[in-house]
Amino acid sequence: MSETSDVVITTSKAAARIRAAAIDAFAAGGYGGTTTRDIAARLDLSPAAMYPHYRSKEELLFAISYEGHQLAHEFVAAADPTDAAPIERLRTVVAAFASWQARHHAQARVIQYELTALTRDHYRVLVRMRRETTAIVRSVVDAGIESGEFTVPDAEGVTLALMSLCVDVCRWFPAGAYTDPLAVGDLYADLATRMVGAHRTP
Amino acid sequence: MSETSDVVITTSKAAARIRAAAIDAFAAGGYGGTTTRDIAARLDLSPAAMYPHYRSKEELLFAISYEGHQLAHEFVAAADPTDAAPIERLRTVVAAFASWQARHHAQARVIQYELTALTRDHYRVLVRMRRETTAIVRSVVDAGIESGEFTVPDAEGVTLALMSLCVDVCRWFPAGAYTDPLAVGDLYADLATRMVGAHRTP
Repeated sequence: MSETSDVVITTSKAAARIRAAAIDAFAAGGYGGTTTRDIAARLDLSPAAMYPHYRSKEELLFAISYEGHQLAHEFVAAADPTDAAPIERLRTVVAAFASWQARHHAQARVIQYELTALTRDHYRVLVRMRRETTAIVRSVVDAGIESGEFTVPDAEGVTLALMSLCVDVCRWFPAGAYTDPLAVGDLYADLATRMVGAHRTP
Repeated sequence: MSETSDVVITTSKAAARIRAAAIDAFAAGGYGGTTTRDIAARLDLSPAAMYPHYRSKEELLFAISYEGHQLAHEFVAAADPTDAAPIERLRTVVAAFASWQARHHAQARVIQYELTALTRDHYRVLVRMRRETTAIVRSVVDAGIESGEFTVPDAEGVTLALMSLCVDVCRWFPAGAYTDPLAVGDLYADLATRMVGAHRTP
């Protein structure tokens, strides 16, 4: 993530504990309904003790969102078997992204639903990071079209739908019989191959 | 919606204006970050003047969510050509639901993201309403499996993914080339037929 390498997420244990408590607090009361005092109280800290780590609630939200986007991107990028056939790449990338959203659904919800609370500059950083993950999926879709293995109505639209399908897992997971992140990944890998027209009817 | 017919949404113009102002306020600051005073201020009302219509912020959120779920359900149910072939029903129902989420994305976001702020009883009412819309999609999927026109890995999982794909439109719409709700409906109708294995490769 070269474009965003100027941002550093504090890796101290104390800062990580604060981020985890903030995710819980935002998940329970929403960003707007949570104060830095509420977050500090969850850790038996004074608001002053939190200040050296995060100077504002917005800074904390940005750190959570940045870390989440970075982890999701790295997970998907590392999973992508770039030398494999497009259908194999698509299955693997979609399964990775969908299962990440399931596994980290509490954090992912905060990241997805509170983006508008960020400053303009912070928001822009995250939009760039999201585009890098979308670019992986788009490159797989384009590779499949190029090789003739995929038939899609519109590469942009299919990519948008694939990303949307994966991201929304964090909203509903777990549901019904789908309580295992890996099962969601398997189902979505199958559906993705169908969406790009790579499905072979039996 | 027989199960929920005990709930009445106030149809007065004043109440509708309050709901519209609340949607704007919740969209801007989140439910947790908004007070009834904020909502009243948007309409140049005193909080006391709002009280006869909605006695609390939660009651207002429930009214917004109930109305939105009811409208979405009625739109999808009215669109469903129940006597048509499953593939035609699927296309029509998915296009209707996806385009509804695009057209009403501000209201839909409030409904989707603030559900956890409702009382337990109110939450249950909405879960029942959501199940009724899901049941329409599931009945179409089942009809296609029954007739042999659809081949799906798992009827529950495909239904879950179809609903998720449509609901998440409210999060991203508009994006890129997709700024027309009807264009989203067309794309999603096409993708839905692929997801159920009803796609015929050219």
